Amino acid sequence: MPATPYLRVDLARLRANIGRTAERAAAAGVALRPHVKTHKTIEIARLQLAAGAVGISVATVGEAETFVRQGVSDVFVAYPLWLDDRSAGRLRDLTADATVAIGVDSVGGAANAGRLLGDAGLEVLVEVDCGHHRSGVRPDEAGVVASTAQRTGLRVRGVFTFPGHSYAPDALVSSAADESAALRVAADAMRRAAIEPRVVSGGSTPSLAHSDTHLLTELRPGVYVFGDAQQWELGAMAPEQIALTCRATVVSHAGGRLVLDSGSKVLGADRAAYATGFGRLPDHPDARVVMLSEHHAVVDLGDTPLPSLGSQVDVVPNHVCNAVNLVDTLYAEEASGELRPWPVTARGLNS
Amino acid sequence: MPATPYLRVDLARLRANIGRTAERAAAAGVALRPHVKTHKTIEIARLQLAAGAVGISVATVGEAETFVRQGVSDVFVAYPLWLDDRSAGRLRDLTADATVAIGVDSVGGAANAGRLLGDAGLEVLVEVDCGHHRSGVRPDEAGVVASTAQRTGLRVRGVFTFPGHSYAPDALVSSAADESAALRVAADAMRRAAIEPRVVSGGSTPSLAHSDTHLLTELRPGVYVFGDAQQWELGAMAPEQIALTCRATVVSHAGGRLVLDSGSKVLGADRAAYATGFGRLPDHPDARVVMLSEHHAVVDLGDTPLPSLGSQVDVVPNHVCNAVNLVDTLYAEEASGELRPWPVTARGLNS
Repeated sequence: MPATPYLRVDLARLRANIGRTAERAAAAGVALRPHVKTHKTIEIARLQLAAGAVGISVATVGEAETFVRQGVSDVFVAYPLWLDDRSAGRLRDLTADATVAIGVDSVGGAANAGRLLGDAGLEVLVEVDCGHHRSGVRPDEAGVVASTAQRTGLRVRGVFTFPGHSYAPDALVSSAADESAALRVAADAMRRAAIEPRVVSGGSTPSLAHSDTHLLTELRPGVYVFGDAQQWELGAMAPEQIALTCRATVVSHAGGRLVLDSGSKVLGADRAAYATGFGRLPDHPDARVVMLSEHHAVVDLGDTPLPSLGSQVDVVPNHVCNAVNLVDTLYAEEASGELRPWPVTARGLNS
Repeated sequence: MPATPYLRVDLARLRANIGRTAERAAAAGVALRPHVKTHKTIEIARLQLAAGAVGISVATVGEAETFVRQGVSDVFVAYPLWLDDRSAGRLRDLTADATVAIGVDSVGGAANAGRLLGDAGLEVLVEVDCGHHRSGVRPDEAGVVASTAQRTGLRVRGVFTFPGHSYAPDALVSSAADESAALRVAADAMRRAAIEPRVVSGGSTPSLAHSDTHLLTELRPGVYVFGDAQQWELGAMAPEQIALTCRATVVSHAGGRLVLDSGSKVLGADRAAYATGFGRLPDHPDARVVMLSEHHAVVDLGDTPLPSLGSQVDVVPNHVCNAVNLVDTLYAEEASGELRPWPVTARGLNS
């Protein structure tokens, strides 16, 4: 067994999460292009592709390179990249081995990408904001951005959004409705600019069950493979579906609480406004991680007797994407109990 | 230049922070044993040792191994380790090349360490809680833990605490007073058990200027080498002293705000209750990072004109220790402007 703290993947649950989501997408007649920033691991991307995914979504050129090098042939960088000579050259190299698309969310970004890569066979999708208010143009501006891209030689594949405001209590349904409304306006704006969006792409794990699969042609969820405490607390996934936990050791009972060696350097420091703590304990659903520092998780167990010093406890991270990005290896547990090491090959590839 | 986002070290400021703190410790007649979990980088540890540090503090056995392998000869694992055969063997191996001490914060932990390493020449310090309420025994219990350690063959070096409740507005002075009070009680409790504490160790960057250097014999600050937005907002360090920034690219102006490519996968997701945002911009002190996701930092600049798309902006992370742990390389900027890559050799070593 690896030394604690380490991240453990329940292979049966992982396969079930991948299979269930793939079946639902297939039944709805919509393509699945999972976001692999969640797991950064080729073994999991292969399971997703084998289950029918049309390709993968990534956040950075470095992630794209890593997965293409390991055999993935269809990659969408779902991010409004601002390209320079170097990143454009890296994308150009990638197009030799894969179908590559990138996001754009401004006239300036589209013109810049076209100037550098208008002759490279690269496809672009225009990002629109559907209410998350992060990146993305207003839906009615999708036409002008698409026109700019097309004029500079880029192929416009379509439009995409991320309904990230699904990460809030009671927003699972409404954020999907916002997603649908914004993508409809954007697709119409594109058509008015005489560009037919072949792909209308959205999806987030919390809102996934409510995405408008009559309008959307593609879904890009990421977290669904593992789940995490955020999905648990949002009611988007059941605790029994969570496929990744951090195995931790009880190092102290200071102050009558449980102190674990799983700190923010393995769980991540994420704590959304709605979170009840810094992670959850599947074996102690009423417990709360009340304090998190780099190498300590302090757990309030209420009146429950404390697990003994030196014993091991599982913790579900709040945000699994950031937890995975902190380790070099995931340990996938087979039905036999054997642990198979999976390298997190795209860890740390922020550019 | 590296691709953004990357972490950049201002070498002149780094050297000034190291020198100033070393001089203050020397003037007060107290030993400095910096916590290297902040930087995880041998080049910086060497600067600290050259400036007079008596050794280093680390949080994990893996960090200890990395620094000893690179030539550091005096290491204190300032953590209540729960040892097993494997970690005890690793510590035993380390004692061949270095003076090694570890923390204990329970009778059980001391007995366990003694059982495994009572014959290894290992030293221990008893951790006490001075008000942070994380790990550490009650100060008056330091004697019984020290006695247990000594009985099992471990050498008791002394007592330590971490006044981590200094990380709150207006707590810089009071947390140092708590530190002093707790260490006094603990040292007395040890003496009543007929064990003279040779080392009385404390210190945190926010409370450092207020530590009781009449009582304390050793200080273990970590963050002081770089500073971060937390130190800035606590008033513990001036923005002009901050020696590490994340260089980011403006990728979008969506919604009239600045969107940077420096997300939580390079800045860390830390946001303390007192923080005004997810980081600070040294060139725009009134700006706030209002939203942070894995690859987006959304900055509200108020009425200030937005830096242009594709331009670069510096961001100070909230908590520098977690930011550094996300990258493989720091880029140290010489006076000439040249960037020297420093490998973060202890990155990710959580055990």
